[in-house]
Amino acid sequence: MTFEEKTLKSERIYEGRIINLRRDTVTVINGESQREIVEHGGGAVIAAVKDDGKMIMVKQFRKPVERIMLEVPAGKLDQGEEPTAAALRELKEETGYSAANIRLLTKMYPSVGYSEELLYLYLCTELTKGETAFDDNEAIDIEEYDIDDLYKMVMNGQIEDGKSQVAILMVKGLFAEGTFQGYLKRSGLPDRKENETDVV
Amino acid sequence: MTFEEKTLKSERIYEGRIINLRRDTVTVINGESQREIVEHGGGAVIAAVKDDGKMIMVKQFRKPVERIMLEVPAGKLDQGEEPTAAALRELKEETGYSAANIRLLTKMYPSVGYSEELLYLYLCTELTKGETAFDDNEAIDIEEYDIDDLYKMVMNGQIEDGKSQVAILMVKGLFAEGTFQGYLKRSGLPDRKENETDVV
Repeated sequence: MTFEEKTLKSERIYEGRIINLRRDTVTVINGESQREIVEHGGGAVIAAVKDDGKMIMVKQFRKPVERIMLEVPAGKLDQGEEPTAAALRELKEETGYSAANIRLLTKMYPSVGYSEELLYLYLCTELTKGETAFDDNEAIDIEEYDIDDLYKMVMNGQIEDGKSQVAILMVKGLFAEGTFQGYLKRSGLPDRKENETDVV
Repeated sequence: MTFEEKTLKSERIYEGRIINLRRDTVTVINGESQREIVEHGGGAVIAAVKDDGKMIMVKQFRKPVERIMLEVPAGKLDQGEEPTAAALRELKEETGYSAANIRLLTKMYPSVGYSEELLYLYLCTELTKGETAFDDNEAIDIEEYDIDDLYKMVMNGQIEDGKSQVAILMVKGLFAEGTFQGYLKRSGLPDRKENETDVV
């Protein structure tokens, strides 16, 4: 039996640059409990597939885990920014690529136990190469991989970033089903809105 | 070019029940910046596949996103607990099932931008049904789904929990490759240690 927890009290612990933290006292099935909740404005994640079938990946040092990670391009939404716009902006900034074709693959809650963060995962195709425009404190390497190689890297545990695992496995799924092209045909920038009524 | 950020200062902001929060001042390519980092002890995630090919799923209300989510079983590691033990314990507590066969599928960093949380994703098979043992403040529904139906639900955006997306897509991949049985044969509790030298 599921149980909808009601908020009895909410304490603000921290307001920061990327995240806020609050602690809610809630009703649970046997009384009261506390939930620590990270507030996060959400982000856009980009599975960028070139005409030759290669996917664009980025490498960067990630302080929370103290190591360099291989990931798909991604970035947080600016205040009030529409997720599709954020995806196209981040793709351009981090990799230099512009996409003529974008479609929402899925939404993803990375850490539903303590964070409200929601990621919008997009498939971007019909890519054109241009210049990157990193943030001042970003240091990023751009690499291209065949989707089959990336799939193997996920299945072998060589790619450990969650959003990248989902992006690669979904794109591989579309190719394996033979539905990748059909998926794209249902898409494209002009028709975007009618397919994304649930995207704020 | 990647850049390894060095910690210049570390401020402790909050110490809680599930997470801690600190703010590090770090060197970046153009000077200094700040990184807000959620400390989390990590968790175990379980892709539990029955002999009939059905996967065990759980439904529960998740306060951070204010909704009921459909997820694979999972739970955080107890202090000093070995991830494999945590996986078997959580599977038993949340679903009642015991597994005679367990194998590490992959590791997953759900939110590498601001959290050090690391999830160990296991495949559990040879399941035996018993009694659940929920935590006092857990209210969980148990459901079983065919793996092909779960795969469609991920691809259609009906499953939005990140760890569950990865678990389902990886299991579907093993079935699609025809390697699921071979994957299991390389596994089993007695041989576990030699396959998991990198698991702390």
